[in-house]
Amino acid sequence: MMLSNAAYDELMAFQRETEALAQVAGRLGWDQETMMPAGAAEQRSEEMAAMEGVLHARRTDPRLADWLERAVPGDEVGAANLRHIRRSHARMTKVPARLAQELARVTSRAQGIWADARARDDVASFLPVLAEVIRLRQEEGACLAQGGDPYDALIDDYEPGASSASIGAMFGRMRPRLVSLRERVLGATYQPPRLSGHFGEAAQLRFARDLATAFGYDFTRGRLDLAVHPFSSGSGDDARITTRVVESEPFNCFYSTIHEVGHACYELGIDPDYRLTPLGNGVSMGVHESQSRIYENQMGRSRAFTGWMLGQMVERFGDFGIADPDAFYGAVNRVQPGFIRTEADEVHYNLHVMMRFDLEQALIRGDLAVTDLEAAWNDRFLADFGVKVTQPSLGMLQDVHWSCGLFGYFPTYSLGNVYAGCLMLALRRAVPDIDAHLARGDATPATAWLRENLQRHGGLYEPKDVVARACGAEPDEGPLLDYLEAKFGEIYRL
Amino acid sequence: MMLSNAAYDELMAFQRETEALAQVAGRLGWDQETMMPAGAAEQRSEEMAAMEGVLHARRTDPRLADWLERAVPGDEVGAANLRHIRRSHARMTKVPARLAQELARVTSRAQGIWADARARDDVASFLPVLAEVIRLRQEEGACLAQGGDPYDALIDDYEPGASSASIGAMFGRMRPRLVSLRERVLGATYQPPRLSGHFGEAAQLRFARDLATAFGYDFTRGRLDLAVHPFSSGSGDDARITTRVVESEPFNCFYSTIHEVGHACYELGIDPDYRLTPLGNGVSMGVHESQSRIYENQMGRSRAFTGWMLGQMVERFGDFGIADPDAFYGAVNRVQPGFIRTEADEVHYNLHVMMRFDLEQALIRGDLAVTDLEAAWNDRFLADFGVKVTQPSLGMLQDVHWSCGLFGYFPTYSLGNVYAGCLMLALRRAVPDIDAHLARGDATPATAWLRENLQRHGGLYEPKDVVARACGAEPDEGPLLDYLEAKFGEIYRL
Repeated sequence: MMLSNAAYDELMAFQRETEALAQVAGRLGWDQETMMPAGAAEQRSEEMAAMEGVLHARRTDPRLADWLERAVPGDEVGAANLRHIRRSHARMTKVPARLAQELARVTSRAQGIWADARARDDVASFLPVLAEVIRLRQEEGACLAQGGDPYDALIDDYEPGASSASIGAMFGRMRPRLVSLRERVLGATYQPPRLSGHFGEAAQLRFARDLATAFGYDFTRGRLDLAVHPFSSGSGDDARITTRVVESEPFNCFYSTIHEVGHACYELGIDPDYRLTPLGNGVSMGVHESQSRIYENQMGRSRAFTGWMLGQMVERFGDFGIADPDAFYGAVNRVQPGFIRTEADEVHYNLHVMMRFDLEQALIRGDLAVTDLEAAWNDRFLADFGVKVTQPSLGMLQDVHWSCGLFGYFPTYSLGNVYAGCLMLALRRAVPDIDAHLARGDATPATAWLRENLQRHGGLYEPKDVVARACGAEPDEGPLLDYLEAKFGEIYRL
Repeated sequence: MMLSNAAYDELMAFQRETEALAQVAGRLGWDQETMMPAGAAEQRSEEMAAMEGVLHARRTDPRLADWLERAVPGDEVGAANLRHIRRSHARMTKVPARLAQELARVTSRAQGIWADARARDDVASFLPVLAEVIRLRQEEGACLAQGGDPYDALIDDYEPGASSASIGAMFGRMRPRLVSLRERVLGATYQPPRLSGHFGEAAQLRFARDLATAFGYDFTRGRLDLAVHPFSSGSGDDARITTRVVESEPFNCFYSTIHEVGHACYELGIDPDYRLTPLGNGVSMGVHESQSRIYENQMGRSRAFTGWMLGQMVERFGDFGIADPDAFYGAVNRVQPGFIRTEADEVHYNLHVMMRFDLEQALIRGDLAVTDLEAAWNDRFLADFGVKVTQPSLGMLQDVHWSCGLFGYFPTYSLGNVYAGCLMLALRRAVPDIDAHLARGDATPATAWLRENLQRHGGLYEPKDVVARACGAEPDEGPLLDYLEAKFGEIYRL
């Protein structure tokens, strides 16, 4: 065997085309959620499956094993590239092409069925395809785990290095402090006002664009569109975001936008040298979510930034009954046991995730049948949130994830919150006057710090390591919980 | 050698994925022209090249030859599928990979040089790369023709079954009648008015959508967006169209839209069983253009339909100085000797094409040097149109086609016009009250007839045959010329 730089170069040239094709497949997904005419859904699932087949063939190409054996990385970047390709190659060779294509086809179809079922509040029409998705992901998890835990194998797709045990332990530490905070907040004498009124779609979208700009989103390398379920997509020089508009609830649009801007800024902030290489994407879902969360919550829902937002909203929408910055700050951060995860306040959010984490583990491990899922969901929701789910679109049909086959993904939202807590502590140390900038509606110094200390690295370091480097310490849930207790203690005058 | 149905099935399964991937590549092109942020252009060219590489590898896959040798079609549809795949495979194997790559590289470069030359009206900077493109296409034509005529081999790419002899003979018959009509029209005492005024973009786009619906465009399987140069793209259940808006020239938007609706209705009208097979696309450029032209001209510019349009435009845009249906019909169909082919009226259009047909034949056959092209163009334009070309961007630099290597493509525009003439005659016989429908702004009975008699067949029959089947006779130029003489004789009171 000859170790060789030529093998590394050949491998990277091949990989570059694969990355480009992955971008194409991702953009096809974006199109499906934003632009595709409804009648094209069936054909699209074949197109997606064909792309998936091409990508799978490349990721299991027989030449890869040989290149990987012989390639010599020239530096730290080369070593990281090889680490990513090795991990992906090991994963792909474990999953049969037939299964990968079936997953692509079924999940593409399942998303249409889910959207329809949610619109009609019809659980029964969704269960058969959900059962099929679960069966395929169980099979995939088993292939990947090779005797280990299938659910852990699925988590590893989204958060390399994490496990259900480590996440379960973290949730175990978080839960008592969150439940206690929740009880004190809901029982507090002072309750902030609720925003009400009518906020026109066009004006909401204009403000959403301005919010994106305030956080440093580069519209020459992205765009903002409407979608049922807001998401961001694409890497390199084409990272697009979506939002949605409810005319009676403008915070929905504004904070979805800021959230997706966080994701997109991460992608756009990666070192341009890494474009179309394995380092040219956010390193994990948890780290990705840390960016969306720190933009949305720690900054977007801060006292400083909401002060600026209040002025903007009065200017754009006229008097809507809240004129006092304290009251507005309270309204933005109002804690209430709502049904919908994506609309949840910071106190409840992780409780939503913990519930899904337990339910999806049971589904994947075969301990919960899809026919029992609705009852299990509703029982757990009543227990955790004290509210009875009145319709499935407010319950188990609310999220797109499971229809896409995204089992093991939900816990990364909470990891992101935890990382965001750590990063905000470090950011405040590094940019002590950040609140003064936010109070002027300018979050770009934060984006600059995050870019320099975390975003630019892309996939260079492992998820936990890149957060630790930025923070100067191993991340844990402490800073997030401290921040939540301080913030909501003050708002609710506890 | 074992003949086998299994070989046919394997071949078709492989082909189905190739067709799906071609749809993805097409949609990427659509995205580039409509949605892509400007900063993504460089990355996009890598993504496109990667998709092209995937498609090229599949179309030259070594298994194809074996499948084609052994495959047994079960029926007429199977035979047509094999005919298409054989033709494409023969083409791919006759042209050396080296030549195909060089053509891709040189034409890609030539388009940039052409755009630049056109912007600066600088012929000299375009000639060297044009000479290179011509040399490569000559070489390719020679490979394809295998002793026959290279230009005919190039035509065959766009219009299987057509030849320079048959097209030349047809043009020879058309020319005297067109020239005579042109002279009478330009010399007529009565000249229709010219449309003027300001027509807002939003209202133009709303009307464009309603026009598309009037012609039966199915928005559940397509969409309408803006692009610099209008085009249609996609097959099966996802055929999208674009238009452009010039606020002083609303006919530009309206007739571009109707034209692209014709192309898209053809694709959407193909038998759903042919989706993602070689029969699932329009059969040739000429037949495609017959659909866009019959929608745009024979129907969209008819007295009946423009009567309805006038009422709609007054309602939507207010008074714009033309209130009489006769005058409006004249304004829509105004004849004038302009420089630009894409803006030409129905009388001049085919004269533009004939000129390009003669010039490009001479270029490919080596009878005209690129250094003599500008003089040849300008001399011919003066002779045919009576106007001196004042700058090359209004002359030989106006069209993108030659820089892309599209020699043999121009005559399909005229074939489309000729086919549209024949089809309109047949349509009038089959739907005698079509004008009554058009006068109510409803062209869907025409779309229904075209779908049933032509569109649904997709690639099942050869181009000329599918038109002959719909018309009940071999197509020729007679009906088009009769229609033009009657229509413009009446408008110009000859």
